[in-house]
Amino acid sequence: MLIVMKPDATETDVERVLETIEKLGFKPHEMPGANRIAIGITGNNGAVDPTHFENLSGVADAIRVTKPYKLISKDLRPEKSIVKVGSAEIGGAELAIIAGPCALENPKQVFLVAEAVSKSGAKFFRGGAFKPRTSPYAFQGMGETGLKILAEVREQFDLNIVTEAMDEHGVDLVEKYGDCIQIGARNMQNFSLLRYVGKTRKPVLLKRGLSATLDELLLAAEYIMAEGNYEVILCERGIRTFAAHARNTLDLSIVPAIHNVSHLPVIVDPSHGTGRNYMVNPMARAGVAVGADGLIIEVHSAPEEALCDGAQALTPMQYLELVREVTAIHEALLPVNKIVESAIVA
Amino acid sequence: MLIVMKPDATETDVERVLETIEKLGFKPHEMPGANRIAIGITGNNGAVDPTHFENLSGVADAIRVTKPYKLISKDLRPEKSIVKVGSAEIGGAELAIIAGPCALENPKQVFLVAEAVSKSGAKFFRGGAFKPRTSPYAFQGMGETGLKILAEVREQFDLNIVTEAMDEHGVDLVEKYGDCIQIGARNMQNFSLLRYVGKTRKPVLLKRGLSATLDELLLAAEYIMAEGNYEVILCERGIRTFAAHARNTLDLSIVPAIHNVSHLPVIVDPSHGTGRNYMVNPMARAGVAVGADGLIIEVHSAPEEALCDGAQALTPMQYLELVREVTAIHEALLPVNKIVESAIVA
Amino acid sequence: MLIVMKPDATETDVERVLETIEKLGFKPHEMPGANRIAIGITGNNGAVDPTHFENLSGVADAIRVTKPYKLISKDLRPEKSIVKVGSAEIGGAELAIIAGPCALENPKQVFLVAEAVSKSGAKFFRGGAFKPRTSPYAFQGMGETGLKILAEVREQFDLNIVTEAMDEHGVDLVEKYGDCIQIGARNMQNFSLLRYVGKTRKPVLLKRGLSATLDELLLAAEYIMAEGNYEVILCERGIRTFAAHARNTLDLSIVPAIHNVSHLPVIVDPSHGTGRNYMVNPMARAGVAVGADGLIIEVHSAPEEALCDGAQALTPMQYLELVREVTAIHEALLPVNKIVESAIVA
Amino acid sequence: MLIVMKPDATETDVERVLETIEKLGFKPHEMPGANRIAIGITGNNGAVDPTHFENLSGVADAIRVTKPYKLISKDLRPEKSIVKVGSAEIGGAELAIIAGPCALENPKQVFLVAEAVSKSGAKFFRGGAFKPRTSPYAFQGMGETGLKILAEVREQFDLNIVTEAMDEHGVDLVEKYGDCIQIGARNMQNFSLLRYVGKTRKPVLLKRGLSATLDELLLAAEYIMAEGNYEVILCERGIRTFAAHARNTLDLSIVPAIHNVSHLPVIVDPSHGTGRNYMVNPMARAGVAVGADGLIIEVHSAPEEALCDGAQALTPMQYLELVREVTAIHEALLPVNKIVESAIVA
Repeated sequence: MLIVMKPDATETDVERVLETIEKLGFKPHEMPGANRIAIGITGNNGAVDPTHFENLSGVADAIRVTKPYKLISKDLRPEKSIVKVGSAEIGGAELAIIAGPCALENPKQVFLVAEAVSKSGAKFFRGGAFKPRTSPYAFQGMGETGLKILAEVREQFDLNIVTEAMDEHGVDLVEKYGDCIQIGARNMQNFSLLRYVGKTRKPVLLKRGLSATLDELLLAAEYIMAEGNYEVILCERGIRTFAAHARNTLDLSIVPAIHNVSHLPVIVDPSHGTGRNYMVNPMARAGVAVGADGLIIEVHSAPEEALCDGAQALTPMQYLELVREVTAIHEALLPVNKIVESAIVA
Repeated sequence: MLIVMKPDATETDVERVLETIEKLGFKPHEMPGANRIAIGITGNNGAVDPTHFENLSGVADAIRVTKPYKLISKDLRPEKSIVKVGSAEIGGAELAIIAGPCALENPKQVFLVAEAVSKSGAKFFRGGAFKPRTSPYAFQGMGETGLKILAEVREQFDLNIVTEAMDEHGVDLVEKYGDCIQIGARNMQNFSLLRYVGKTRKPVLLKRGLSATLDELLLAAEYIMAEGNYEVILCERGIRTFAAHARNTLDLSIVPAIHNVSHLPVIVDPSHGTGRNYMVNPMARAGVAVGADGLIIEVHSAPEEALCDGAQALTPMQYLELVREVTAIHEALLPVNKIVESAIVA
Repeated sequence: MLIVMKPDATETDVERVLETIEKLGFKPHEMPGANRIAIGITGNNGAVDPTHFENLSGVADAIRVTKPYKLISKDLRPEKSIVKVGSAEIGGAELAIIAGPCALENPKQVFLVAEAVSKSGAKFFRGGAFKPRTSPYAFQGMGETGLKILAEVREQFDLNIVTEAMDEHGVDLVEKYGDCIQIGARNMQNFSLLRYVGKTRKPVLLKRGLSATLDELLLAAEYIMAEGNYEVILCERGIRTFAAHARNTLDLSIVPAIHNVSHLPVIVDPSHGTGRNYMVNPMARAGVAVGADGLIIEVHSAPEEALCDGAQALTPMQYLELVREVTAIHEALLPVNKIVESAIVA
Repeated sequence: MLIVMKPDATETDVERVLETIEKLGFKPHEMPGANRIAIGITGNNGAVDPTHFENLSGVADAIRVTKPYKLISKDLRPEKSIVKVGSAEIGGAELAIIAGPCALENPKQVFLVAEAVSKSGAKFFRGGAFKPRTSPYAFQGMGETGLKILAEVREQFDLNIVTEAMDEHGVDLVEKYGDCIQIGARNMQNFSLLRYVGKTRKPVLLKRGLSATLDELLLAAEYIMAEGNYEVILCERGIRTFAAHARNTLDLSIVPAIHNVSHLPVIVDPSHGTGRNYMVNPMARAGVAVGADGLIIEVHSAPEEALCDGAQALTPMQYLELVREVTAIHEALLPVNKIVESAIVA
């Protein structure tokens, strides 16, 4: 923490700040300047709350220096985490592809899509049984019936199941039927739910909230990990901005930003991130090129009949083309990734 | 819904759209233009999902026309709702002032503030027992012990208690000890929680999410009302934008926007909406001038020692000055409000 | 400037930073902490460019402390500036109201509106002769012919003329015919134009850009003042956010933020700031309540026939009602403003 | 245009809308629905201004349907434009790489970088002689002296010169010394300047404004083309959002969005788009993967000594690695691009 005093701060103002720092058990460092005084704080183990200082007389600004997270940090664990999801992994050398329909609608639809996903070589299947819908009058998902279909998909196609839970009851069910608990963007700061999944021993796919900063996303992961569950995968799925040509603005720069400070794997969702069928493939390519550990893609056997988010769903054919293209990019970058990794580890 | 065809759409494309509309049970209206064809849809009772059309060949755009909400709408209930909270009301001619500390910390602090709030003439007391904190390592609130202090405040000062619940367990407790259940910004689209409070019979103060649109806020209220609880108060508390001079951007234009389509009362939170002590009073004045039904204000007996959000808390003295100023504005506008109301009802 | 080193920075890294600071002629202050070292910089007269440090080995962050502006600052001039515009003033005790049509269309329209503006007691008339339109095919304004009409309005109604210039040629003409040169939001960082108006001796109304931060707005004013023209009035006119219920999000918190650091007057434009007729009056009230020095309001004799921005224009009758209401608020707050002013001066 | 009436609109309201449409010379199409009436408009050649209708009694909404641009549209020119810049092209099969320092500082720096750029196989050199700086006290560029150095670079290394002009005087000079006139983000809606470069016969690199929508960017290009200069290249360089982990949010989804409606080439600027050295290479890879026609990259011989934007500049070595990686991606996608192109033309 750095406290910057106003140019007209009095000696008494400065003394009060010094005392406050000492009262908190920290060490103040006075730095007199040409126009004003700044006071550094050391001796703190975590972040200092700036509100202890902001309203003191003569204080112009209280600037945070120490980051507030621990478990997600590369300071703690320099090598990248590889998260085991069912029989496969996310975060390793292989590109993880999670594909399937937005919402589970009926067994026929699910199996048609699962077949395409399986053929593509992907190892993960997605499909929502509980749907967080903006309107209470929209289709809310099949519930446990849907989860049972997913369990059959796993058995039949040897795909690992990623599916969303919206509350504690849902977590219990996903833990029973699935391989990875997805926490949706709207629940990224549902701290009670984060703590609850932190107590399970299933990996968690945590989606970035629509207006979440990097620090907020990392601290949401920290909530889960603080409860003892270290198997967390982050997911960029688009943020809310003024731009209206896509449903959300897919913020790919968060991928290198996360890899810069955290050991956690991060995947990209170009389906929700754009909301437009024709953008999914190009943005999936971009996601792989930027260095994401995987993709999550919506595929529907008949997008125009989808009960949810049909505008962004790919047909099985479009999806297979996407896999072909992102694989080409992933392979073109293999030597790069190896160099990066060794640079990071070193 | 209006379907706009591309200039080069074929007759087959147009026919497919017409068929799809009819298959959904609606009536298509073809409108040939100079360059392209548009097709209107009527006969639908609620909003039509544009995804049925967006990926059809030849379709340029599918534009929503019908709004997806019902119960919050002035179409349903033209006169403004007045919500009863304990022994007082929000939404009537009187300005509702809800004041108190961000977090409950100890009985002494709470009673000091409650005394100031009571003296100011306000009828509602706020104070968080469960705190949604960005970091798992920050102070998380006093829990039930805090709620018991609030119950004493009610008894001693005859103030009605507004306090936040973050999960079902919290809702049960707030129902027991408080008068109004606050749903925080980060839980605005926690749909399971919305449904749960919809089943209680306590009024709900619903805060706008950091990146929630007007429609999303109204539909979150609709979730609560669809379960049978019609006692909902909306709250603007600042949205997330690029602007960094305040912690959030208080979007006061949503107040007339809500009053334009909904009968629900709306209050303004200039404390979280700015995060800066010196901005709270001016923005509170602006909130009353724009026509809000009330204010929610953070007051702390010693802001620089606050465990949470001290930078925005007012001292009891600053708070009393705020009440004086907003009351002057409310009174200056009384004739205006009467005219507006009669214009709306007429 | 504060340089924060990484936890694993070496002694050599630290030395390189110290050397770089000394090479720039400043004084480094080393602050060893529990986990890492921070280095403060003093001796600089203005802001230090962080890019000198950000890419040095071992540096985690370079944090700005000194603000980069001078002439706009209250440090330089603690009392508020009052800007003379023609025969009247902006920034003093009186509320400045600038009203008129968005675009000048024909003499009849202009004179009808000018009559209403004059009757309302306002002292300033606005009307665009040069219109910055998003599309090259939209109406671009009457040019010099329009300015001549404005000159007649001044003569006939004794109103002071505020009108926009988009380029150097326009500035020359506005200087000739008008009393105040408006620089529009889209030109807020047209630095060549800012310098050009800085060389005139007419007051300048500088509108905040759609995505301008507080600092960028203040530095745009600094560009004008650095050329010798100190007569600058700032104007909040709405920023671009995700919120779509209004055309822009009027960010009223910038008014106290500006008054906190700068002596320049600031006015509010609720017409462009909302783009909705029914929001203009409530947001004008809020603008006055928050402490703005004035308002700029679009009035049209027949909004539905306007060639530009008709959706936000008030009829003369609506405008007169607005003046009545904002005057009531201004008067209710007169004692407040006097106290604030004396507090600031003291 | 589609006019949606309110549920309680009267017959007189509807008639007034019908009359207004006919008075404008268009054809109304009435569509009675279950709850309300909608009225379509055809017969218009361009976009209809919604403000003609929004304030009419009984009108709920006026929704735009026709896009307001012509010359940039694939409706006019279905095949992609290839823009000739000096001796090379942008928009064809080859990836265009424009590289060089942010600001020209001295001949030694410029020639060191030019050598690296030339070695990399890139065909375009960038470097600013006129710098739009937020602060009037920051380095403003070398002016004409800088342009003369650029002319030498062209001669010596056979590189084509792309450089920014901020005003008419600058345009004249860039026309004289350079091969392509860059219009910066802050001038994207400086309509006078757009018209001025529209009258030159040099290609124009038009950067997207920090808060520009897709339509605004396209219409800015339309301004240039409407004056007769069709050689326009668009550039995504990051938008302003709440996210602070990068200087701007690089919105790559605009690349497929532009290719979807326009024949103009589009390039990506990952240097300004991120402002962070370590993000430039990953985001450049993503830009190529998403389908951009080229990249513009900042390279500096000694980034830590740069007078401008050093934090994002690559060293020559980092730049060569970037070229190696983006080339690998471009080649991996060559078959894809061919298929896409033929699909678009077909």
